Amino acid sequence: MFGPVIMGSSNQKISYSELGQKLVPSAIASVMTIALENPDVLSLAAGFTDNHSLPVPEVGEAVKDLLSRSGLPEYLQYGPNQGRPELRHMLAERLMKQDGVVYNEEDRKKVFITNGSQQALFLATQVLCDAGDIIFVESPSYFVYLEMLKGEGIEARSLPVTEDGSIDFPGFEKELIGMRESGEIDRVKAIYLVSYFSNPSGESRSEDEKIRLAEVLQRLDEPIAVIEDAAYRELYFTEEYPARSIVSLDDFKGISRLYLTTLTKPFATGLKIGSGFCTDKDWLERMLWLKGHHDFGSSNFTQAILENVLSDGSFDSHLRVIRQIYQEKMHTLHIALCDEGLETVGWEWKKPLGGLYLWLKAPEELDTRMGSEFWEACCRNGVLYVPGDLCYGGVKVFDSVRLSFGVLSEKNLMEAARRFTETAKLFSNIG
Amino acid sequence: MFGPVIMGSSNQKISYSELGQKLVPSAIASVMTIALENPDVLSLAAGFTDNHSLPVPEVGEAVKDLLSRSGLPEYLQYGPNQGRPELRHMLAERLMKQDGVVYNEEDRKKVFITNGSQQALFLATQVLCDAGDIIFVESPSYFVYLEMLKGEGIEARSLPVTEDGSIDFPGFEKELIGMRESGEIDRVKAIYLVSYFSNPSGESRSEDEKIRLAEVLQRLDEPIAVIEDAAYRELYFTEEYPARSIVSLDDFKGISRLYLTTLTKPFATGLKIGSGFCTDKDWLERMLWLKGHHDFGSSNFTQAILENVLSDGSFDSHLRVIRQIYQEKMHTLHIALCDEGLETVGWEWKKPLGGLYLWLKAPEELDTRMGSEFWEACCRNGVLYVPGDLCYGGVKVFDSVRLSFGVLSEKNLMEAARRFTETAKLFSNIG
Repeated sequence: MFGPVIMGSSNQKISYSELGQKLVPSAIASVMTIALENPDVLSLAAGFTDNHSLPVPEVGEAVKDLLSRSGLPEYLQYGPNQGRPELRHMLAERLMKQDGVVYNEEDRKKVFITNGSQQALFLATQVLCDAGDIIFVESPSYFVYLEMLKGEGIEARSLPVTEDGSIDFPGFEKELIGMRESGEIDRVKAIYLVSYFSNPSGESRSEDEKIRLAEVLQRLDEPIAVIEDAAYRELYFTEEYPARSIVSLDDFKGISRLYLTTLTKPFATGLKIGSGFCTDKDWLERMLWLKGHHDFGSSNFTQAILENVLSDGSFDSHLRVIRQIYQEKMHTLHIALCDEGLETVGWEWKKPLGGLYLWLKAPEELDTRMGSEFWEACCRNGVLYVPGDLCYGGVKVFDSVRLSFGVLSEKNLMEAARRFTETAKLFSNIG
Repeated sequence: MFGPVIMGSSNQKISYSELGQKLVPSAIASVMTIALENPDVLSLAAGFTDNHSLPVPEVGEAVKDLLSRSGLPEYLQYGPNQGRPELRHMLAERLMKQDGVVYNEEDRKKVFITNGSQQALFLATQVLCDAGDIIFVESPSYFVYLEMLKGEGIEARSLPVTEDGSIDFPGFEKELIGMRESGEIDRVKAIYLVSYFSNPSGESRSEDEKIRLAEVLQRLDEPIAVIEDAAYRELYFTEEYPARSIVSLDDFKGISRLYLTTLTKPFATGLKIGSGFCTDKDWLERMLWLKGHHDFGSSNFTQAILENVLSDGSFDSHLRVIRQIYQEKMHTLHIALCDEGLETVGWEWKKPLGGLYLWLKAPEELDTRMGSEFWEACCRNGVLYVPGDLCYGGVKVFDSVRLSFGVLSEKNLMEAARRFTETAKLFSNIG
């Protein structure tokens, strides 16, 4: 069946673009590989969601409803690059309702649908930044975004913090003014905030903090965008975090803003639909033109499923169920770590009010990085975590860890807590 | 409900990356806008698929089967960045079967799943090319790819052709040697072929042509990759085009190759799943690392649906149905154009053996570009087409058009042919 074999002299390695050369594997990918290769290992690393509560009946009903509609099955055809108009309308309305402001017909035009909110982050960043540009990030921040920035040669610089860990706004303003004086300000393209039950810290940004940021930027009067990642906003345990988003705060007037959310983290990650709400028409257009090159539109079918569950209320009723599940899981992990005595060997953490993570500070000077003695001991003891240093942009901190309580069962969370604490105790004299 | 309004002094326009600045709206987007704004217009422009034969029962069965499975509903959870292992296995096996070669266990590792084959094209190109680099393309070639290249500042250079329109291999070799002598060869990153029932030409590349290309590249011995876009390979009308893919031709040994296919064009475009098969492990890894930044994995749910319809045979039985539908539609449009007398006023075209397009050559010197007199007259007469010049890289040709027969009904195809021919007759004295 084969054609004649020519002994190919061509054995030249292809050469890559600047980006292609700089790309490196994701650090978290190696954590996942350890987990996959060692089925006995309990992973507190993966940010997966609870498997048992995935919305099987809700998706079933939505698909049944779609398939039984009269008329053409447009949901199986290509959809618009920007996303389904009705879904965009619903998302704009939902955001305005969350922010307690009046929905305006223009709002739907600001929404675009992406392959998870990750794609929106990618589009936003590619349109804004060349290699060497700067994005200010929180300490800690979302490590997948930090890895993307690194891959693109963009500097993730830490927002300055006060001693209690909150953003040092006067310090930040001073830093920006200094950058203007040194001619560096043009490289600052955006500020990235994970402002509701953050991945990884679990913390939220108060309205007061957002307003103070807006004031700094207004006084500075430089073209710096603000990106607010609200992936966990709907995953509160008992009540919404009482802060409007940056798109509804008039203090940001004139500042280009992008608000990101995901429909799949709080419902079914396998559907992979996120969205952005952009206040800057020109920026939005460019992101959409780039999306045209990426894929000219996200899956119309999964968008139609989400449109359906949003409109019949099953998205919200499912959310009510999983909020309780995650609160219980968080509580289980928290109590297990307490009961095992992790606090007694110098570890500290706060109970979050939402999200999927506990953010732990190790005893002073305990190195938790991948490959550290502590890391290796945890692996040997069958428990994985995300090393905190991956969550820092500029100034790295080596004594934190992120523990996810989303995916493991209550029983496994308790066993993982036992293994983790057992290992931590072996290192307690270091602390 | 609003916070205090600060009269924002910040009204600075944000500045974009080099890429962000270069981005332009897609030409085809303006065609689509005309179609949307004028419901009476019949569009032979959009490359949509037939709406009436979309696989509603097949998708329904697949979802029902998935949802009724015992065990965890993993298909609603995140999947691997590279794609579902079983789907990758099936796609590798399917390709080897089409090529008539023996499937090797290693083959599945070469497959990756993307948001339509467009994303694979984007990843491949971003990893390979910086602005100023060169990709050789056919005349005509896939205009969405040409637009992407333009957007990224990459030069799409036309492969030289002989008088009968086939690739001029000696000419190409000479050109490449010349580029080596002038030091330009390092900028040549890949050759892009749409080799089965091409969009837009409907033509296929014989095995002999592929082998001649391989020979040129082997003799040249420069690190130039080959990308084969087989989006329409399965959309033949009566029989497969008898040419193996570049990944199964030993003549290409040592040359980095990427073969692209889509699961959604021949099934349901709304599911948005494509795939790549890459012979170069290092290139593949870099594309996957970049995909990690894009979205860290395509929708696991739509992948699971496709896995299901591939394994129970409904993908293939649906293909058998739509092949006949598209053949009939092609025939309807072809006959209607003949009956209306388009040939009598100097237009020429060939009946394709597969795909979704008729590629028409206008009478000499009739300008069919967007905004030309002919274009405006067609718009006024309520029929849209894709101007052929959009499908050329380097040397543009202004007297061709692409007509899609995928989406319109038989009745509308006939009416569109009438309007098109009527307009063409008005311009017949120009020819």
